[in-house]
Amino acid sequence: MPTTPADAVAAAWDHIESLPRPTLRELFSTERDGGEGYDEPGGAERVAMLSGRIEWGEDETAGGVLFDWSKTHLDSTLLAGFEKLAEARGFAQQRAALLGAEKVNVTEGRAATHTAERGTGKDSDVEEADALHQRMRLLVEAIHGGAMGEVKHLIHVGIGGSALGPALAIDALTRDLELVDVHVVSNIDGVALEQAFAACDPATTMVAVASKTFTTIETMTNAASVLKWLGEGGVSDPSGRVVALTASPEKAVEWGVDETRILPFKETVGGRYSLWSSIGFPVALAVGWDEFEAMLAGAQAVDRHFAETEGRVNLPLRAAFADRYYARVRGCQTRAVFAYDERLGLFPDYLQQLEMESNGKRVAADMQPVDEPTAAITWGGVGTDAQHAVFQLLHQGTHLVPVDFIASIAPGDALDPAHHRILLMNCFAQGAALMAGDKGTDPAHHFPGDRPSATILADDLDAATLGALIAFHEHRVFAGAVLMGINPFDQFGVELGKSMAKAIEAGDSDFDASTAGLVEAAGLTA
Amino acid sequence: MPTTPADAVAAAWDHIESLPRPTLRELFSTERDGGEGYDEPGGAERVAMLSGRIEWGEDETAGGVLFDWSKTHLDSTLLAGFEKLAEARGFAQQRAALLGAEKVNVTEGRAATHTAERGTGKDSDVEEADALHQRMRLLVEAIHGGAMGEVKHLIHVGIGGSALGPALAIDALTRDLELVDVHVVSNIDGVALEQAFAACDPATTMVAVASKTFTTIETMTNAASVLKWLGEGGVSDPSGRVVALTASPEKAVEWGVDETRILPFKETVGGRYSLWSSIGFPVALAVGWDEFEAMLAGAQAVDRHFAETEGRVNLPLRAAFADRYYARVRGCQTRAVFAYDERLGLFPDYLQQLEMESNGKRVAADMQPVDEPTAAITWGGVGTDAQHAVFQLLHQGTHLVPVDFIASIAPGDALDPAHHRILLMNCFAQGAALMAGDKGTDPAHHFPGDRPSATILADDLDAATLGALIAFHEHRVFAGAVLMGINPFDQFGVELGKSMAKAIEAGDSDFDASTAGLVEAAGLTA
Repeated sequence: MPTTPADAVAAAWDHIESLPRPTLRELFSTERDGGEGYDEPGGAERVAMLSGRIEWGEDETAGGVLFDWSKTHLDSTLLAGFEKLAEARGFAQQRAALLGAEKVNVTEGRAATHTAERGTGKDSDVEEADALHQRMRLLVEAIHGGAMGEVKHLIHVGIGGSALGPALAIDALTRDLELVDVHVVSNIDGVALEQAFAACDPATTMVAVASKTFTTIETMTNAASVLKWLGEGGVSDPSGRVVALTASPEKAVEWGVDETRILPFKETVGGRYSLWSSIGFPVALAVGWDEFEAMLAGAQAVDRHFAETEGRVNLPLRAAFADRYYARVRGCQTRAVFAYDERLGLFPDYLQQLEMESNGKRVAADMQPVDEPTAAITWGGVGTDAQHAVFQLLHQGTHLVPVDFIASIAPGDALDPAHHRILLMNCFAQGAALMAGDKGTDPAHHFPGDRPSATILADDLDAATLGALIAFHEHRVFAGAVLMGINPFDQFGVELGKSMAKAIEAGDSDFDASTAGLVEAAGLTA
Repeated sequence: MPTTPADAVAAAWDHIESLPRPTLRELFSTERDGGEGYDEPGGAERVAMLSGRIEWGEDETAGGVLFDWSKTHLDSTLLAGFEKLAEARGFAQQRAALLGAEKVNVTEGRAATHTAERGTGKDSDVEEADALHQRMRLLVEAIHGGAMGEVKHLIHVGIGGSALGPALAIDALTRDLELVDVHVVSNIDGVALEQAFAACDPATTMVAVASKTFTTIETMTNAASVLKWLGEGGVSDPSGRVVALTASPEKAVEWGVDETRILPFKETVGGRYSLWSSIGFPVALAVGWDEFEAMLAGAQAVDRHFAETEGRVNLPLRAAFADRYYARVRGCQTRAVFAYDERLGLFPDYLQQLEMESNGKRVAADMQPVDEPTAAITWGGVGTDAQHAVFQLLHQGTHLVPVDFIASIAPGDALDPAHHRILLMNCFAQGAALMAGDKGTDPAHHFPGDRPSATILADDLDAATLGALIAFHEHRVFAGAVLMGINPFDQFGVELGKSMAKAIEAGDSDFDASTAGLVEAAGLTA
């Protein structure tokens, strides 16, 4: 009998790894002999067992998303095994700790309160988030109302978590209407900023500077160049055009932003979890406050599901089971996400950051080295484009890649319905083909099949759905971290490169011969 | 003694896999004891051994790119081992077959003549490509000269190889000047087309329809919707606005394109290798003919290097050595590419297709299953953005990921030079940090180091450089295919999904229960 949590974890894994590995075709068959360990449903019953919907709202705000994990190798024995693992890892306690604002970010001694931004969490955090949102709402509505003069453009300067969320949400939600034309600029490469300048008129342009610490070198350098451009463009008080989005308001004041235009957020909201906070300001400005609130409501519906559902029917937890299975048992170093929707073109990038920065670790929360592969590399693209680019490898390459497909039943366009119908048929056909395979007429036309996929099918891609999709993945990442025993809320791995860049800047010559040669070739030496 | 080519390949691999595996730190050290198998240069001598430049032009057309592979684990013993492998695989003969227009695409019984498009290959192919280029040039210059009325916009419809190359080149080369505003539309999702419509005026818009076969469902559906939009926008003869880029001119005529506006390319030019052919029409229209020719010239310089250089100093071949080493010996399922240049934002996507569709295979050219991992999954992004998103995993995750960094010494922007200086310093610092690692103050701050990277440093990112960068990767992919014995020029892996989509369209109900359920949930059943 296991006597410590570590023993229980090891025992759970021993059991999972000892289980038989039927093919997807076998799992779907309704005609299996039901031998030991396989006494479970095939066909439509299997689909029912491994599909679930998360829903929200009523009447015109009603919506939902279907999560179909049946085309993965999860079966009832694996689900039971992973439930044991979750129990051994204290999943229910960890979840309670997250939502109860305990210091789950142990290395930094902080809670992680992003769910409070959408109303899920400790009362005091929710109230504080509400108060900050009301302040943000007033500013957004004041700008829409003309209080800051004519505002046609916003240059939003931020990087990483301060850029990817706003860029994703604005790209997804403003196809029909954009109240203010927002340009998200992240890269230190001046080419990025020049592209925004070319599309904006200084006379009608505001600036959002988004940085949790208000010290990020890319963001502060870009912000300075935007102010210079405004000044050269005839704006008499460039600083008066700036809104600061930060967890360090005092730094923003020092930098010259008036306190009335600082929208703070709490230090316990991590960068890659900050879209819900004042980092969402450019989203609210572009799509309007009601849409921003709808996004929060969709996320909250997923929070409720995650908080209140136990075991295998908890959809983010179940997805984390599959993620762990493929990473550890099947040796998959990657997983792929294909959004069959042009509006979700940035979603794979967003998930890359969320998953890889959170769970791309090598030590556990207790500072011991992990003894298993941590986060897979998340990659992907947009369907149907990706079918003509990378699906060759998925179907006939030698690497097993679990795939997520994401699509919306309602179309995003008003063209001939053939467009959306062909889009969805291709999406479903790819999952079917990966699983089924085909003998082919010769070895070059042979498809081995038995390649897993999951399908996330939304009723419609509106603001609430986007919020739900993001929150689903946040909880999936958290559940994955719990199953590995790691802290998903720090990111010390980005520090060494930063400090080495500073050393090059300072003229430190203590580098390897290759780096020294590159610095010299580029003329960066004094 | 090996007696067959297969024996020689196996012997080469046995040798490679038996070699010691010094760390990068050890390889760079100039103070090693030079024990058996390690008698080779460290420090700057190592960098010289594993760096090389490809150059072209004279005076104002002069340019070059530095390829520094010294921060990989290649050493002289591995290089010698891989030279044996290349010999066993008949690299020199295969290269001669490619450039001599032999039928290297054995499954389709075709040559692969993309290099002839830039002047490298069999004389008759080069002459034919020249003639087609001259025809394209006349049309491009006629349009620039106003022969087709005022042309402000081009909607370029194509997907996969007919879209990624033009999109990359136009994004990279039109930051300063775009003669015609080009919108590349690939996705069947109507949202993509609507976005282009919103930016174009039907009265001044031309259409390019790019499809090798002129039957691609996405492209033909999108093309039909563009014609409808032109008609609804008051254009009396929408078909008169179409230019067809295709290897099936007869199909384009059938579809209604006037022969004078069909720019054919040869069937032996593969889709993902077709940017150099008439598929480059939108590029020439956007940047001008001289720039398009400069792109061809840069590619030709790399062709010359690839054709005339033997063994380890052949830079694309050397890169393929490292790719094979990490994929097979170190078990890396991926490799990452980070362009530290906003203008190369689409380059990782372009390489994804080029590498994964070419070499993501499971059978060799002789139809035998391969016994090693084939193409790695290529993923990546843009620096410095990616540092704030995915570098956590690169530095502290459990997966080894070989990284390529790409940068340009000359800036692409005219802002404060601090932008470009910080960009380059960060690029170099990341490679240094991945290799060096750091003990850290505690396990969470520990960086194991010994993580490989290569750096591709261009003098400037102009049209010739872009051509050189793409050609380098084409040859790297070809060399990798030769080392595995596979045919990189077919792509049968995309066919099963297509035929299954047609089956869904036809109402075929013979699908797994999951797919049947999704089709029903989306209301696609009749």
